Amino acid sequence: MKFDTINENAGKSLTEQIATKISQMIIDKHLIAGEKLPNEFELASHLEVGRGTVREAIKLLISSNILEIQRGKGTFVVNHPGVVEDPWGFAFVEDKYKLAQDLLELRFIVEPEVAALAAEKATPENIELLRSLCSEVEDMIRHDIPHSEKDVAFHKCIASCTQNQMIPNLIPIISHSINTFIEVTHSSLSEETIETHRIIMDGIEHHDAAKAKEGMIKHLTYNRERMKKIFQESHKDSFSS
Amino acid sequence: MKFDTINENAGKSLTEQIATKISQMIIDKHLIAGEKLPNEFELASHLEVGRGTVREAIKLLISSNILEIQRGKGTFVVNHPGVVEDPWGFAFVEDKYKLAQDLLELRFIVEPEVAALAAEKATPENIELLRSLCSEVEDMIRHDIPHSEKDVAFHKCIASCTQNQMIPNLIPIISHSINTFIEVTHSSLSEETIETHRIIMDGIEHHDAAKAKEGMIKHLTYNRERMKKIFQESHKDSFSS
Repeated sequence: MKFDTINENAGKSLTEQIATKISQMIIDKHLIAGEKLPNEFELASHLEVGRGTVREAIKLLISSNILEIQRGKGTFVVNHPGVVEDPWGFAFVEDKYKLAQDLLELRFIVEPEVAALAAEKATPENIELLRSLCSEVEDMIRHDIPHSEKDVAFHKCIASCTQNQMIPNLIPIISHSINTFIEVTHSSLSEETIETHRIIMDGIEHHDAAKAKEGMIKHLTYNRERMKKIFQESHKDSFSS
Repeated sequence: MKFDTINENAGKSLTEQIATKISQMIIDKHLIAGEKLPNEFELASHLEVGRGTVREAIKLLISSNILEIQRGKGTFVVNHPGVVEDPWGFAFVEDKYKLAQDLLELRFIVEPEVAALAAEKATPENIELLRSLCSEVEDMIRHDIPHSEKDVAFHKCIASCTQNQMIPNLIPIISHSINTFIEVTHSSLSEETIETHRIIMDGIEHHDAAKAKEGMIKHLTYNRERMKKIFQESHKDSFSS
């Protein structure tokens, strides 16, 4: 389902048109996360189409991450309707190294400023959550447990500190796939991660925007160096093999 | 279809599993934009499921913007598989003013740096396209033609000048919806748009990163002021009515 065509039905199949109508109904009736949709029968009679069409439309909305079926209970609006995890089709990009480089370049643009904004606007609750995520990542690194997911949660929490609703959508997309790239090939530079996370944490905690920003730049610089090294090593492999 | 579950089938319906397999096939076989998928019959026998399941899986992949049906010709891989237009569910955000503010804040973080990078890396072909888009927007403004789409194209072209593959995915998302917000309420401040677009254009053309960046900051500042004004006016209306 596309954003700016929500009111346009031209060229759409009946199923797509009905899916659009159901989406619009969710928006208009302010149905929020966890709210139950009317059943197939009611929807079919309200929208004046067959139940089969309603069923197809619901399947489309499930695949668009708008609805979910809870077995035995009915159809519900999901937590963040319409938010998709791979909106830029990373799975379909062939050159993963160029992808990781491009994403890291984007992180260099976005995340230092986000860290600075986070330091300005973080609430005590934000800071408490960030501190606990920071410790968890450290513990996982010390015990050699894969910490990629928790690391993304740490960076997403920084994004939430900004009080901007959209930035937390962006951060996991750009940080997740870099982590995936790095974790599948090599383990991470743990001490540098611990050190730089602490600088960022400290900057945000003391509302010191410059420190948070500098910590983030240092953090990303380590990531960039690590990525270069991985690339050089994998290149060496391809020469020697 | 979710990014990091492309190899996980746990908890998925048969249709979803088959959709995942077809996606993986597209990736593995390096099927690119415009390439034709084997027909339903071949897919069904290859994947050892019924044709009905294949048909359902293809519908899912169409709704995820991975495949498209060309009537009478068959099923094809789309231009940018997996790239969705409203990945953050803007259509479902209720407070459009807060949404526009948050997106503008994100633009202030991203676009000045992107303009600077564009000035560093733009090729002669990039510059030629950018110049023609810049003129087109100006013409549309002078003739009072709605220029929102062309304006997004101008900003996306700046993103392409960076040679970063991911940044052009981001820019239309964040600029489009602000334009939507502004265009539906008020017409734009045309002279400021023309003036600041020209500064950015000039900076990129002469590989002057500082000028491109400053032009972008000026451009966004006008946008912010315009948005504030719109909000104050709509607030005034709600008091007087």
